[in-house]
Amino acid sequence: MSSPAPQKLAHAIRFLALDAIEHAGDGHPGAPLGCAEITTALFTRHLKFHAADPMWFDRDRFVLSNGHGSMLIYALLHLTGYEHISLDQIRTFRRLGSHCAGHPEYDPASGIEVTTGPLGQGIANAAGMAVAEAFLRNWLGEDMVNHRTYALVGDGCLQEGVGQEIIALAGHLRLGHLTFLWDDNRMTDDGGITIAQSEDMCARFRIAGWHVQDVDGHDVAAVDAALSLAALDPRPSMIACRTMIGRGLPRLQGQRGAHGGRVFAEDLIAARESLDWPYPAFTIPDDVLSVWRAAGRRGLPAYEAWHARLAALSPERRRLLDRLREGRLPEGWEKPLRNWRRDIAPAKAQGGINSSADIVEILATTIPELVSGAPDLEGPTQHKRHLTSFSATDQGGRYVHYGVREHAMGSMVNGMAAHGGVVPLGVTYLAFSDYERPALRMAALMGLPSLFVFSHDSIGIGRNGPTHQPVEIVASLRAMPNMLVFRPADAVEAAECWEAALSNRSGPSTLVFSRQVLPPVREDGTGENRAARGAYVLAEASSRRRATILATGSEVALALAARQMLEAEGIPTAVVSMPCWELFERQEPAYRDQVIDRTTVRVAVEAAVRQGWERWIGEDGGFVGMSSFGASGPEADLFAHFGITPERVAGEVRRRL
Amino acid sequence: MSSPAPQKLAHAIRFLALDAIEHAGDGHPGAPLGCAEITTALFTRHLKFHAADPMWFDRDRFVLSNGHGSMLIYALLHLTGYEHISLDQIRTFRRLGSHCAGHPEYDPASGIEVTTGPLGQGIANAAGMAVAEAFLRNWLGEDMVNHRTYALVGDGCLQEGVGQEIIALAGHLRLGHLTFLWDDNRMTDDGGITIAQSEDMCARFRIAGWHVQDVDGHDVAAVDAALSLAALDPRPSMIACRTMIGRGLPRLQGQRGAHGGRVFAEDLIAARESLDWPYPAFTIPDDVLSVWRAAGRRGLPAYEAWHARLAALSPERRRLLDRLREGRLPEGWEKPLRNWRRDIAPAKAQGGINSSADIVEILATTIPELVSGAPDLEGPTQHKRHLTSFSATDQGGRYVHYGVREHAMGSMVNGMAAHGGVVPLGVTYLAFSDYERPALRMAALMGLPSLFVFSHDSIGIGRNGPTHQPVEIVASLRAMPNMLVFRPADAVEAAECWEAALSNRSGPSTLVFSRQVLPPVREDGTGENRAARGAYVLAEASSRRRATILATGSEVALALAARQMLEAEGIPTAVVSMPCWELFERQEPAYRDQVIDRTTVRVAVEAAVRQGWERWIGEDGGFVGMSSFGASGPEADLFAHFGITPERVAGEVRRRL
Repeated sequence: MSSPAPQKLAHAIRFLALDAIEHAGDGHPGAPLGCAEITTALFTRHLKFHAADPMWFDRDRFVLSNGHGSMLIYALLHLTGYEHISLDQIRTFRRLGSHCAGHPEYDPASGIEVTTGPLGQGIANAAGMAVAEAFLRNWLGEDMVNHRTYALVGDGCLQEGVGQEIIALAGHLRLGHLTFLWDDNRMTDDGGITIAQSEDMCARFRIAGWHVQDVDGHDVAAVDAALSLAALDPRPSMIACRTMIGRGLPRLQGQRGAHGGRVFAEDLIAARESLDWPYPAFTIPDDVLSVWRAAGRRGLPAYEAWHARLAALSPERRRLLDRLREGRLPEGWEKPLRNWRRDIAPAKAQGGINSSADIVEILATTIPELVSGAPDLEGPTQHKRHLTSFSATDQGGRYVHYGVREHAMGSMVNGMAAHGGVVPLGVTYLAFSDYERPALRMAALMGLPSLFVFSHDSIGIGRNGPTHQPVEIVASLRAMPNMLVFRPADAVEAAECWEAALSNRSGPSTLVFSRQVLPPVREDGTGENRAARGAYVLAEASSRRRATILATGSEVALALAARQMLEAEGIPTAVVSMPCWELFERQEPAYRDQVIDRTTVRVAVEAAVRQGWERWIGEDGGFVGMSSFGASGPEADLFAHFGITPERVAGEVRRRL
Repeated sequence: MSSPAPQKLAHAIRFLALDAIEHAGDGHPGAPLGCAEITTALFTRHLKFHAADPMWFDRDRFVLSNGHGSMLIYALLHLTGYEHISLDQIRTFRRLGSHCAGHPEYDPASGIEVTTGPLGQGIANAAGMAVAEAFLRNWLGEDMVNHRTYALVGDGCLQEGVGQEIIALAGHLRLGHLTFLWDDNRMTDDGGITIAQSEDMCARFRIAGWHVQDVDGHDVAAVDAALSLAALDPRPSMIACRTMIGRGLPRLQGQRGAHGGRVFAEDLIAARESLDWPYPAFTIPDDVLSVWRAAGRRGLPAYEAWHARLAALSPERRRLLDRLREGRLPEGWEKPLRNWRRDIAPAKAQGGINSSADIVEILATTIPELVSGAPDLEGPTQHKRHLTSFSATDQGGRYVHYGVREHAMGSMVNGMAAHGGVVPLGVTYLAFSDYERPALRMAALMGLPSLFVFSHDSIGIGRNGPTHQPVEIVASLRAMPNMLVFRPADAVEAAECWEAALSNRSGPSTLVFSRQVLPPVREDGTGENRAARGAYVLAEASSRRRATILATGSEVALALAARQMLEAEGIPTAVVSMPCWELFERQEPAYRDQVIDRTTVRVAVEAAVRQGWERWIGEDGGFVGMSSFGASGPEADLFAHFGITPERVAGEVRRRL
């Protein structure tokens, strides 16, 4: 019996997708149909994977950046034999609880490397994966790490700013193991691509230093050959695959409506006829399925050889490899950090961001897989220190100069975290976190342990003015589910928050630091990690507490000053430091009640908007903070101008007694 | 007496900037020094303006996109004679209350067209201004509108994704009156440009369809000639001006440290010596100043000719022109909207976004300067209808197909609003508002009446899953100062919210709509605009109120269902609809107390996170909503799965009684 033609393999994708979409009642047929041949070439001839072990560390990564075409990846995973993506799962496409969600949701154990949906994120994640791979390959050797990252890319991903940032940066960094397969279907949701684009996209990649090819995306052999060539080139590769959107669906193919148009039973009949596919719904003929399943086992020799090499490693290297692929931090990583907290931090009066820089310098030594970086703010944030640059010529470097590309940074940090084996962090000013926010959201949604560090966290930055002064941003970060937001008050808390952030492995942590000097508020850096409880009584009232002042970050010192005034007047007042609301929320109610003490007058102070504080101070609590954007002027003038002063805090307490 | 050499004019900029920065104690000398000749050429030979009337409608617009170089624009404005930018103001550079803030803050009456600081925003604003100009020129004729937009651009602006989006889109739209002057100093904060960029930026502009030139940025005559050529070309123009950062400051010029390095008294002595500038601090020699002041009057003939043409207009056209330049909406614009609210809306059960589309179709007729657009979502958002596209070949169109470029859209909407004469709105899905958020922030900070419309506002979108389901986003928008956030409950409220949004001229309005059908909750669309009070009692309790259910948008209908259950059990319950928290916050306390009634049990329901609701329900109030991201599944399944149901709301009330 002869093997089925590649076209027939591609049709298996098409009909699984169409049957699932018709069965679900909606979905996006355009991409699965248009990219069936491209991914047939990739999955049957190039992608290094072993379907029986989706988590194999040295597998190639595949990212469906045009995530709306989700049935494409589910079809591929089912056909190649991923256990979780059974035919039953495909039948439940877009139903609650299915592995086959409307857009692919991060689930590496099922073969889904990353959540995609918002356009451009996927290719940026892929670039981050390629950085992680290159770094690990340089560090651990090609024996253990030597794989490629492929991303299927739609027009939208390339129009998005983050996509453009990635084109520039991946070319600049010469990420040679990165390949984009561009679904060049010349059709967008609004109509033909020329409605919003006239540039030559291949030329755009070329000037950024990419290897560029141009093939018929419905010719499996052509895509195959291009993939071979891509693998030989030291530059990142872009393969423009000329396709027809929705190919095989007579009523919609090549049309705007193919993107997300409804597919009816009649369409399936017409498609089956036109493509000579006489099989019933959800039925793949044995000869076709067996070729696909063989493709899913194609990586077995490489897989076994890799495991043999792993088994032959020295015990020390073996422990390292196992630790990295399991995502565990080195044994005792906290120790130097705790020593710093105990010995150095209590006397450190310095900018919050400088404490973070000192801490990351220590962590970079204890955690060799830590990869830092910033978008052209190395000087003011100092999270490089003795790290070398990751560059086109040294991919063993551990600091990425992202250029002024915050969004790329955030999404690449996520890609590194999703790849595994590295502990990625990205640093910028808090005012620019909005540029990065779509990446923060994806990290939270995927539950990735990405680390986002922000400096210059309030009007405390002074004279650069309101564009650079966050006011609403801490609140907007706290609104994000599944993300820890830390705002430490001094160097001791900075160390505690960093330890808590690194211990948080099921979601991102965001650490927010001042630019201005934070005087120490904790004299003792020993003992329990108090910040890890989210909030704690920093200074108890001298006798039965009548007032509680709640504060975070730079305003904790101010709260202590207010407390001193009140105590001098005979008003027993406690100060509660609240570096992380989310962790406090997780404490036992009894602990929370003791810290907050609702029977007392409560006033919160934070150089930011009030939103959310009522959760802790009640609707009648006092709040001292910002209700507008900031202004340009010296720090002290601004705090006075906006009334964020100990006097004002004390006044709010008095008014309520 | 011969006129001073152009070089000397440029030095006047340099020393004003240096003196101010040294006097202030900090600032960014690199750009004012590096771009002194470029802007001398522009301001003395090309820019059409009249310093005595900064608001002249047909002036050229100048945007300092690299806003950190703020002393450059203050020096230019002072030298050319803008009244507000006196020498005294320059002496107060970076002090609280000065016109000369750390970064330029929107102040068109002083010659500052737009706030710049976050990189890339300025050039995107400039592209929006160019769209507004082109549209108005096509509509009103070249007699009345015919000016250019210039932006001075740094490397950071071009590395940012939004900058890349703008390059692509401005070239595509052939914005021929737009000119970028690129400060090609090959130096970034982290070091030489090659640390993070290797692409040929001129080539990048060329493939996007720009006219590109390459000149010595310290040669006034060369920049002058290039500007002349740029004005003749029908494409947008980019002039790469090769410069040395911090030129004239011997210790720092050409160095990384010139960007924002501290300038000392000794530096000024060295600079004065090296540039042969023997004048004391803040002193411009008369011959130099008089040339500059003449440049500030250079536009007078054009200015007078324009006013003569204005005076000669027919009364009807004159009224139109005056209305547009004063930013007033047409007399009686509300009427057709109110008619729709009265006659059509009460019976309209349709998706929230469809109501918005119906409304904008009406508004587009009554407000001929309304310019709509979306990033490749025309189909699902429907805010085009009978509008024609603004395109390279028809710049009279009123709908911009932005491509998948949300950030560009938001910033261009701001640019149009800052230009004046148009009422710009941009539409996309709420989940993608994060991509646009930096623009939303700038609109709020500038107080621009930008209109941001968002659809697909919750888990109600169903099966496309959590990437497309906003959960945290409404809270994050409400955190923004000076922005109104509307979430209407049905078609009547949609009309009311739109009226309130258009009436808000001192800041942006954000309108958030469901994709799913909203059953009418208001049977009567006549009378007072109830939504304009922010919140109101939609259904009062049948007798003395014991419970209050607060809700917004799609959850208002659900609140009414819960009320019905409770009333049936004999619990007198009111439902409060809260379409706009910010407007409610502005009401008299007595009104607020009456609506909220703190003596009753309060429960809020919103398919979003709880953050901020304690402001209205107190810390013990009930909340029914989301505490995690969503999931992929049919809408009804999701509401049930996440427990956002009338039963649950009623249960929360009962539990508290």
